[in-house]
Amino acid sequence: MTLESAPTGGPARSVEPFDVVDLIGRKRFAGQLSDPEIAWLVDAFTRGVVAPEQMSSLLMAIVIQGMERGEIRALTDAIIASGERMDFSGLGRPAIDKHSTGGVGDKTTLPLVPLLASLGVAVPQLSGRGLGHTGGTLDKLESIPGWRAELTNDEMTAMLREIGGVICAAGSGLAPADKKLYALRDVTGTVAAVPLIASSIMSKKIAEGAGGLVLDVKFGSGAFLPSVADAQELARTMVDLGTDSGLPTVALLTDMDAPLGRAVGNANEVRESVEVLAGGGPADTVALTLALAREMLDLAGLGDVDPAPALSDGRAMDAWRRMISAQGGDPDAPLPVARETEIVRADRDGEIARVDARAVGVGAWRLGAGRVRPGDPVDHAAGVEVLVRPGDRVREGDALFEVSCDNAGRLARGLEALGTAIEWGAAPERPLVAGRVTA
Amino acid sequence: MTLESAPTGGPARSVEPFDVVDLIGRKRFAGQLSDPEIAWLVDAFTRGVVAPEQMSSLLMAIVIQGMERGEIRALTDAIIASGERMDFSGLGRPAIDKHSTGGVGDKTTLPLVPLLASLGVAVPQLSGRGLGHTGGTLDKLESIPGWRAELTNDEMTAMLREIGGVICAAGSGLAPADKKLYALRDVTGTVAAVPLIASSIMSKKIAEGAGGLVLDVKFGSGAFLPSVADAQELARTMVDLGTDSGLPTVALLTDMDAPLGRAVGNANEVRESVEVLAGGGPADTVALTLALAREMLDLAGLGDVDPAPALSDGRAMDAWRRMISAQGGDPDAPLPVARETEIVRADRDGEIARVDARAVGVGAWRLGAGRVRPGDPVDHAAGVEVLVRPGDRVREGDALFEVSCDNAGRLARGLEALGTAIEWGAAPERPLVAGRVTA
Repeated sequence: MTLESAPTGGPARSVEPFDVVDLIGRKRFAGQLSDPEIAWLVDAFTRGVVAPEQMSSLLMAIVIQGMERGEIRALTDAIIASGERMDFSGLGRPAIDKHSTGGVGDKTTLPLVPLLASLGVAVPQLSGRGLGHTGGTLDKLESIPGWRAELTNDEMTAMLREIGGVICAAGSGLAPADKKLYALRDVTGTVAAVPLIASSIMSKKIAEGAGGLVLDVKFGSGAFLPSVADAQELARTMVDLGTDSGLPTVALLTDMDAPLGRAVGNANEVRESVEVLAGGGPADTVALTLALAREMLDLAGLGDVDPAPALSDGRAMDAWRRMISAQGGDPDAPLPVARETEIVRADRDGEIARVDARAVGVGAWRLGAGRVRPGDPVDHAAGVEVLVRPGDRVREGDALFEVSCDNAGRLARGLEALGTAIEWGAAPERPLVAGRVTA
Repeated sequence: MTLESAPTGGPARSVEPFDVVDLIGRKRFAGQLSDPEIAWLVDAFTRGVVAPEQMSSLLMAIVIQGMERGEIRALTDAIIASGERMDFSGLGRPAIDKHSTGGVGDKTTLPLVPLLASLGVAVPQLSGRGLGHTGGTLDKLESIPGWRAELTNDEMTAMLREIGGVICAAGSGLAPADKKLYALRDVTGTVAAVPLIASSIMSKKIAEGAGGLVLDVKFGSGAFLPSVADAQELARTMVDLGTDSGLPTVALLTDMDAPLGRAVGNANEVRESVEVLAGGGPADTVALTLALAREMLDLAGLGDVDPAPALSDGRAMDAWRRMISAQGGDPDAPLPVARETEIVRADRDGEIARVDARAVGVGAWRLGAGRVRPGDPVDHAAGVEVLVRPGDRVREGDALFEVSCDNAGRLARGLEALGTAIEWGAAPERPLVAGRVTA
């Protein structure tokens, strides 16, 4: 049995500056890793010198034992260093970025980007596809006929300069180590840890090179980290990382215990977003869109601009139509409609205490709105319309959900998930925006 | 981001009964795994369904969060189930097994097996080769010209019946899952954890099917687990595992802060063992051999037999010569002698407080007595003779160590390790056998 992994100076020693087994052993006992050690780890993993089974063992030690602020910054820097950096300083508009940790029915990116674009801000949204019970922004937009997610850097810059907003797929040049790390974390039970989530998100955001960043950090059952304390820690960690890297960053802590708005899926979320851009839409979707818009305007030096009128007077809608058209989409084309629809009705009278976002998200996922593996197709028409909110009083037989999908074989399992979504009783008071974290 | 790894009942779901990411997540929060879950994990890892990077993540969670007694038993059973079981009940002698957790200069297996054989016990010693700073029994015996480690099961059984002892390489049929797990643990920083060490050792010992087992669990700087508390926990865990599986097991806790005896290496350890079999040898090597022999005799139902006379009257030596000859070795052939020899001398007067076993082990390893990677050759002539003991008073210029190796290029690094081996001052009282653990 080995105490050292190799005798220092022995004949078969490699030229690598560190021994990964030593570093794993230190983190296993909650020790700290130095900046050069962390830089080497990420680089050696990218080069294949540190094997996946070694990195996953280290990641689990990090998940359990944590990382200090300096270690998280070094990890973020090392991930940034694996790829290119972008620069949006020459657009003639302030470039402000936004990120949501993801939730059920969270379509705010869709109305928010054109809203800000219409107010003189440039918003580069490098987005992803969904995996699991929370949807992906690109999946939603791909329900628009003709719309394409992949743009060149030049196309993206042109849209930012001319329209002020772009939502497109992140290129492979940005933080490639994050992609490799995330794929490993996804299959090794090492996703849900603040240092790893924070460095994954912030490495990409810092490498993008915007002039400011607003984070929407969710808590509640449909969030990635359900506890408000974890969400607070994640928000604080990310704001610190942005600050330490010269990226002004503000985070809102927002409630994801119930789905946001009515629509959960893909095409139906686009429909709801267009309602918001037309001055309507569910109150919570509108409120969160405006709260995030105000933070972004503030970082852009436009803190005295009220974003609300741009939703009602058509300016944001104009920007939306230009954005969709610029990426080949037809903003007037009908969106896909599902073949199968079914209404879920209340089996009793009473007050709705909770609409569990997670149950609704899993339901929509099972109906086909989400994917099991990267690369799987999604059913753009599948989804759930949430017809009640916490605090609503309903009578037996009232409609609670409308579920839609193209594949009837998926209905039963989707309905099963929704069967646990409603809790009855007095609804507690839950503010949508529960906190704000700044440098 | 994924909360579930796959939607239950989804289209791409595999037919495996458990999801490894769920099980990793449970252990990450110190939860317990059930017997069927553990059986599946080991089997699925053996089949390649659970990937190395998933198993190493789980192993790190086990290293940090631990396992309950029932989980360790289930893990041991699952490893046993991966291979064949042996049976030594028909030998006409009681079959008693022995295992040492390994130490520096620990050659007790060599005199112990023929000693017990000469007293009517059958001792099957399925041994390994060394890796790291502690030597391997097979490496030591392979310094005897002609001796071969690989035997068929029939050859092994014949030696046990006719001579009473055999030391040979473990076949690949016994606990193959342990071999695969150990290779993974070795490169992922997940070796040093009681549940994993205990299940690794005991799975092979239980599968061997002897009628009793004596464990020599080391503590101190040269041991695998230096702290006496860890050694105690390991001993208790292994004795419980043996007891739960119907294998009567006793453990001695023995001191490995200083090297055992004088010789550390390969050929020189064989030489010291032959001295013991000739009624001589260093007092500590003889004392530990006899202490272990008494425990083994006790488990064999021969508790009234005194083993000491068999060392002085030539019976144990006769069994040794028969054992070596039966495996092609020439017990009279000269053992390899190193080309390079150097004496390390005291640079002061004083009392020796400690001779650090780990430093001596690392020194011998660097001189060529050990290997860096499985399959590397070892230098049978390389090693260290430890010429002083804690409590000795020496004068400046007195010899402390004699180092030997064939490759002069290795001398400097070996001597460097030995340079830290001596501590000066009053030597504390340290009993060789510090405890005994029984069911």
